[in-house]
Amino acid sequence: MAHHPDHNVEVMTDCHDICLQTVSYCLDKGGDHARTEHVILLLDCAEICQTAANFMLRNSELHARVCAVCAEVCDRCAEDCEKFAAGDDMMQQCAQTCRRCAEACREMSQHTGRLRHASAA
Amino acid sequence: MAHHPDHNVEVMTDCHDICLQTVSYCLDKGGDHARTEHVILLLDCAEICQTAANFMLRNSELHARVCAVCAEVCDRCAEDCEKFAAGDDMMQQCAQTCRRCAEACREMSQHTGRLRHASAA
Amino acid sequence: MAHHPDHNVEVMTDCHDICLQTVSYCLDKGGDHARTEHVILLLDCAEICQTAANFMLRNSELHARVCAVCAEVCDRCAEDCEKFAAGDDMMQQCAQTCRRCAEACREMSQHTGRLRHASAA
Amino acid sequence: MAHHPDHNVEVMTDCHDICLQTVSYCLDKGGDHARTEHVILLLDCAEICQTAANFMLRNSELHARVCAVCAEVCDRCAEDCEKFAAGDDMMQQCAQTCRRCAEACREMSQHTGRLRHASAA
Repeated sequence: MAHHPDHNVEVMTDCHDICLQTVSYCLDKGGDHARTEHVILLLDCAEICQTAANFMLRNSELHARVCAVCAEVCDRCAEDCEKFAAGDDMMQQCAQTCRRCAEACREMSQHTGRLRHASAA
Repeated sequence: MAHHPDHNVEVMTDCHDICLQTVSYCLDKGGDHARTEHVILLLDCAEICQTAANFMLRNSELHARVCAVCAEVCDRCAEDCEKFAAGDDMMQQCAQTCRRCAEACREMSQHTGRLRHASAA
Repeated sequence: MAHHPDHNVEVMTDCHDICLQTVSYCLDKGGDHARTEHVILLLDCAEICQTAANFMLRNSELHARVCAVCAEVCDRCAEDCEKFAAGDDMMQQCAQTCRRCAEACREMSQHTGRLRHASAA
Repeated sequence: MAHHPDHNVEVMTDCHDICLQTVSYCLDKGGDHARTEHVILLLDCAEICQTAANFMLRNSELHARVCAVCAEVCDRCAEDCEKFAAGDDMMQQCAQTCRRCAEACREMSQHTGRLRHASAA
């Protein structure tokens, strides 16, 4: 089932938001939560989601390629969060949001050209 | 009436999103819509909203100062959009969203310290 | 010949910088310089260069994939700028910088894993 | 002594770059280096430097206000890094770069209007 592009932008924004919030959460927790690769992956995921959303919002012809990479980063981030997800609501929610975003991005990666047509002047 | 920080992040994200969409809209329209100062102001507003939202999401102690500047940029952008707002739904909606964001940012600029406390480990 | 990662970050930053400057330049010029697809492509290129550079600076394992997409966007932006390059120093310089960045990004897209090893504690 | 705007953009970029690199460094180190407030401050500083540089590169009328906030964040980040600077080259270099950027930003915060004039069409 195909979603409206605006719905997918929202999913990417949700993923960006929870990844940034999870950075603070993981640093507060310390231990394995705060190991370098995990925190960096959360930052990577937040940034590529933001970039992909911005390509969509600008109605860029090249959004599909960025969304394809975003899907990969989201999947990797979800995998990493799932390791901590047992009994940890925040990590569980972050993992689920990343999975949903990976799906939305894969859907958008099939699109070609601009998302909207120019408005009549 | 004070709003929850998460509500205000959403308002900033809405403002960021509509400003970026309005860039494409204004370039498509051409003429006065596409004059340099106007398009640059939309890009400025989109970026500072994103930055302010990110400071909030990171639960940064310094979010209040960034929100104060964001309020100023949003007001300037709203003013500029209002010039085109008569009979132009897109510009009207952009102007209103910028005004709402300016308010949310002024509210956040009164906060001090971190927005949330560290979660218990 | 392989370049040092830091050199390639610099090339990406140069490309980001000139693309953003060229946005203002093209809006000032008007006409074909300011048509939607061209300005959006400059914004796309600036943003993906920034994102790719940030992945490199964070020493992210996933930088190679982002660099691969960045190379594509840079090539597209260079192509578009080259159409205006005859007798236009700014567009010529922007096109050349995009080509150089596309090369640096293709080089980085071959790397795997983190760029640097963790410092000894 | 006043510097050329382009010089100041470079100083802001240097500060952004070293702050992001220092995030990975501090996470690798662990302990006090990786405490939440410190890492978040490095992320704040990197982002506001990038935003301020982008306002300058877009030749935005509102760059002065963003630079003023950037100066504050840089000073706070420098202060925090200086606590770790004894015998730690990375933190020392980061602190110095933040101080230099705070100065450049204060200088830019005195400017008004656009930095460059529109090129003749």
